[in-house]
Amino acid sequence: MHASTPYRRAAVIGGGVIGISWTGLFLAHGMDVVVSDPRPDAREQVLAGLDEIAPALAELGLPTTDMADRLRFEPDLATAVADADVVQENGPERLAVKQEIWRTVEQAAPAHALLATSTSGIPATAIAEAMRQPERLVVGHPFNPPHLVPLVEIVPGERTDPQVLLEARDFYASLGKKPQILRKEIPGFVANRLQSALFRECVHLVAEGVVTEAELDEIVTASIGLRWAVAGPFRTFHLGGGPGGLPHFLQHLGRAMEAAWPGLGSPSFDEPTVALLTAQAEEAFAGEPVGDLAARRDRAQIALMRALADTSHEPTEEAAA
Amino acid sequence: MHASTPYRRAAVIGGGVIGISWTGLFLAHGMDVVVSDPRPDAREQVLAGLDEIAPALAELGLPTTDMADRLRFEPDLATAVADADVVQENGPERLAVKQEIWRTVEQAAPAHALLATSTSGIPATAIAEAMRQPERLVVGHPFNPPHLVPLVEIVPGERTDPQVLLEARDFYASLGKKPQILRKEIPGFVANRLQSALFRECVHLVAEGVVTEAELDEIVTASIGLRWAVAGPFRTFHLGGGPGGLPHFLQHLGRAMEAAWPGLGSPSFDEPTVALLTAQAEEAFAGEPVGDLAARRDRAQIALMRALADTSHEPTEEAAA
Repeated sequence: MHASTPYRRAAVIGGGVIGISWTGLFLAHGMDVVVSDPRPDAREQVLAGLDEIAPALAELGLPTTDMADRLRFEPDLATAVADADVVQENGPERLAVKQEIWRTVEQAAPAHALLATSTSGIPATAIAEAMRQPERLVVGHPFNPPHLVPLVEIVPGERTDPQVLLEARDFYASLGKKPQILRKEIPGFVANRLQSALFRECVHLVAEGVVTEAELDEIVTASIGLRWAVAGPFRTFHLGGGPGGLPHFLQHLGRAMEAAWPGLGSPSFDEPTVALLTAQAEEAFAGEPVGDLAARRDRAQIALMRALADTSHEPTEEAAA
Repeated sequence: MHASTPYRRAAVIGGGVIGISWTGLFLAHGMDVVVSDPRPDAREQVLAGLDEIAPALAELGLPTTDMADRLRFEPDLATAVADADVVQENGPERLAVKQEIWRTVEQAAPAHALLATSTSGIPATAIAEAMRQPERLVVGHPFNPPHLVPLVEIVPGERTDPQVLLEARDFYASLGKKPQILRKEIPGFVANRLQSALFRECVHLVAEGVVTEAELDEIVTASIGLRWAVAGPFRTFHLGGGPGGLPHFLQHLGRAMEAAWPGLGSPSFDEPTVALLTAQAEEAFAGEPVGDLAARRDRAQIALMRALADTSHEPTEEAAA
C-alpha cells in the first residue's frame, strides 16, 4: 500500500485507549506497528479496540483492510523498540513508571528514532531527568482520541533538541494531524488548560442553578463551540471588533472584560456539587451507553471536519481568482 | 410569501450591527419590520447592512428577494412600535437610555406585544425598574451576529412573567434559532461568561509566551472548538469518562482538575499585554480587511451548520431502525 509517512515502523508502548487509537492511525497510514504492553490480554484488547475505531478511520478516508497484518505484539520493551523509527509511549501517568520505560527505550531504540510521550500531565523535563540523552525526548500529546481529533501538542522539555520538535511536527503532520509546537513547557499544556478554564465556569453555573448541564451544553454547541470550530478565540474577537479588529476590541472592551473576571466562579468538586453534577448527568445521558453516544458524536465530528476541509481551500481560490 | 413565524410585525429599535442583523432575520422570515433609530443616516446604514448580510441569509436557505419591501423606517419610537407584535431593542448599553426607551415602548406598544432587549450586559431587572409593567420585559440576547449564530439567551428579570419567557422561546424558535431560557439572572449570562473564562486563559498563555495568538487559535480549532461544536463540555467529559461517563470522570479526575484551577492565569490588560496582543493581531490578521475575514468565516460557519444539521437526524433514524 501507499504509505503517507516516511516513518515506516512505530513502537506503541501501552495498549490502552490512547495506545490503541495511535496504533490504528499509524496502521491506517501504512506503518508497521509493534505494540508493547505487559498485560496478558493486551493483544485481545488492542484487536478489539481496533475493530471499534476502524469505521471512523474508514470514514476519514483511510484504508483499514488488513491493518492487523502489519501489527505485532511484543511484551519485552527493549525488543519492541529495537527497529522503531518512532516510539509513542502511552504508559501510566506516573513519573517513576515513565522514567523506567524511557531509560530502557533510549538504549534499545535506534539512534535515529523519534521518541515521543503522549503524557498529558508529566513534563518532558521531569521524565528526561532519568535519561542519558534527554535531548531526544519530546511530548506528543494528542487530544483524545488521537485517530480523530487533529491536534497534537508538541511540548519541549528544558533540554529537548529543537530539531526533535521539528521532526515530531513533520511526523504528525504526515499522518494528517495538526501538530502545534509549544514555545514553553507549562502544566496542562494549552488545550487542556483552556478546557479546564471553561469547565470551571461551567461547573459554577450549574452549581448556582443558572442552567442545567444539558442546557449549558446546548448553549455551547449553539454559540461558542460553533464559532471556535471555525475561528479561534483571538480571531473571533478580531472579527467581533468591527473594522478595527482585535486592537479596537482590546481598547474598548478589554478593561470591562478584565473587571468582570473576578466575578467568574471558583467552584469546588465538593460532595454536594459532585452529587448534583452526577444526578444531572444521569438524567441527561441515561438510557444510552457511553460507547453509542461517543460513536454518534464521532460521526458528527467527521462530517464537520469534512465540511471544514471543503471550505478551507476557499481563501486560496479567492487569491488565485 | 410563506411566513415561518406567527409573529407578523416587528419593531427593531436601534439600527446598528445587531439591529441590522435582527432586521434581516425577521424580514427573511416574512415579517414586516419597522426600524426606529434617531440617526439621520439610519436608513442608509441599515440598507447597506442588509445588502451585506443578504448572501449569508440566502446561504442559510432563507428567501431574501424584495426583503426591503416589508421594511419601514420610523424615527419616532412610539409610532414605530404602535402595531408591533414583537419589539426587539438594541439601543446603547446604558441603563438610563434603555429605561427611557422602555418607558415609552411599554405605553405605545400593543398589550400583546413581546418586549425583548438584546442587551448583553444590563439586567432586565434594572431596566424594568423604570417600567409600569416590569413583568413584560425579557432579555433576548443573541450571540453575534443574530442572523447566523443559533443561540439566543432568554434571561428573566426578577419580575418577568414566566409566560413571557415561553413566548420569547417560541418566537425565536420560529425563526430557526436555538433559544435557551436561563433559570436565573446573572451578569454576562452564560455564553459570554464561558467565553470570557476561556479568553482569560488565552491571554495568560500568550502573555507568558507559551504560544502566539495565531498558534492558540489553531490549537482551539483543531481540538476543543471542533469538539464543542458537536457536544458541549459536560457531554464531552461524559464521553471521555469511559463506560462510567461523567460520574466516573468526576470521581477520578475531578479533584486533580480542581487542584490545577488555582494555577490558571490571572492576566491583566495592562499596557505591555495590550501592546503584545495588538502586535500579534496585526501580524496574524494583517493584509485582509476584517469584513472579508468575517465573510469567509461566516461561509465556513454555514457549511458547518449544514453538516451538523444533516447528521442531527441520525439518532431518530437509529431509534426507528
